[in-house]
Amino acid sequence: MSNPDEPTKNNHAGSPVPAETPTADVENPTPAAGFGVSAITRRWKREDLLKRGSLVARGLALLFSLLSFIIMASNKHGDRKNFDNYEEYRYLLAIAILSTLYTGVQALRHVHEISTGKQIFERRISAMVDFLGDQVVAYLLISSASAAIPMTNRMREGQDNIFTDSSASAISMSVFAFLSLALSAMVSGYNLSTQSYI
Amino acid sequence: MSNPDEPTKNNHAGSPVPAETPTADVENPTPAAGFGVSAITRRWKREDLLKRGSLVARGLALLFSLLSFIIMASNKHGDRKNFDNYEEYRYLLAIAILSTLYTGVQALRHVHEISTGKQIFERRISAMVDFLGDQVVAYLLISSASAAIPMTNRMREGQDNIFTDSSASAISMSVFAFLSLALSAMVSGYNLSTQSYI
Repeated sequence: MSNPDEPTKNNHAGSPVPAETPTADVENPTPAAGFGVSAITRRWKREDLLKRGSLVARGLALLFSLLSFIIMASNKHGDRKNFDNYEEYRYLLAIAILSTLYTGVQALRHVHEISTGKQIFERRISAMVDFLGDQVVAYLLISSASAAIPMTNRMREGQDNIFTDSSASAISMSVFAFLSLALSAMVSGYNLSTQSYI
Repeated sequence: MSNPDEPTKNNHAGSPVPAETPTADVENPTPAAGFGVSAITRRWKREDLLKRGSLVARGLALLFSLLSFIIMASNKHGDRKNFDNYEEYRYLLAIAILSTLYTGVQALRHVHEISTGKQIFERRISAMVDFLGDQVVAYLLISSASAAIPMTNRMREGQDNIFTDSSASAISMSVFAFLSLALSAMVSGYNLSTQSYI
């Protein structure tokens, strides 16, 4: 860092010698390699961390939306205590299924990309699909949870039984799935924009 | 573009001569100024467009959330036809007020920054506040609209009167405000990430 005129000092970090390969390092082709190398390795570390963080957030979203789906789908206790009598719960179930499918496919794709090192789509397209998909599914999840909350609340004022308890837990799982996906959407928004200039 | 070895050809576009000022152009310090200048002007144009687009989206969000606030707050027709008997409508009103205040302050700040050319906060901090604020308020708006929709729907199956009509229009204004803010959140997410590397 203190000797920007001696780029060979930084060769232990794996940087190419700038005099021999001037076009290998796209972002920093100047001789000031001391600053550039540490900036690039910092950036690599950050991107690696973000990739893992995004995978964890998607995995959590998958888990929570799967739980929400299972709890709500099994919430049938006869008579008026069936979830499919209420449009709010049908909406919640539909969105939980959608979110399970979306996050499942995304998690599989990311695991595949990390393990094989190959990209299925072009990087920019995949970053854009990630961001838009995360955003839209997060909006749908918070919308479905919000729609189901007031009726459940009103039901639980009158009575507390297994039906209202299951509904409440399915709703909270949807809210957790929303929180994970909102985090993941922020990370993929970050990725989307950094892609544009590399 | 076709002569990357003749940087002086592009001096009419206002680029510094690379041999004399090697550190003036952070993004493109190589002698290939023909590519660099057009890329930078393209980027300026895009950022200008995004700034205007973001201002328009925030203005629309301000208009729609103000409408939602006014319509819902004046939705009192006596007896059971008062909005404040229903927690969903109180929630919608609260979020509409919050969103009006937030988008109003943001629009004022952006108009002030564009007219005077001065930044109130540091650029990175203001980009981060923009992005987080837009995201959170957008989530709150879709949540409040979703919470109010099922009950309004059920009421309108039984009767159509001025109370349910006003509720429905306040809800749709909140949805429009959400759409505008979601757009604005995407733009400010883009701005946030490009700030990091300039």
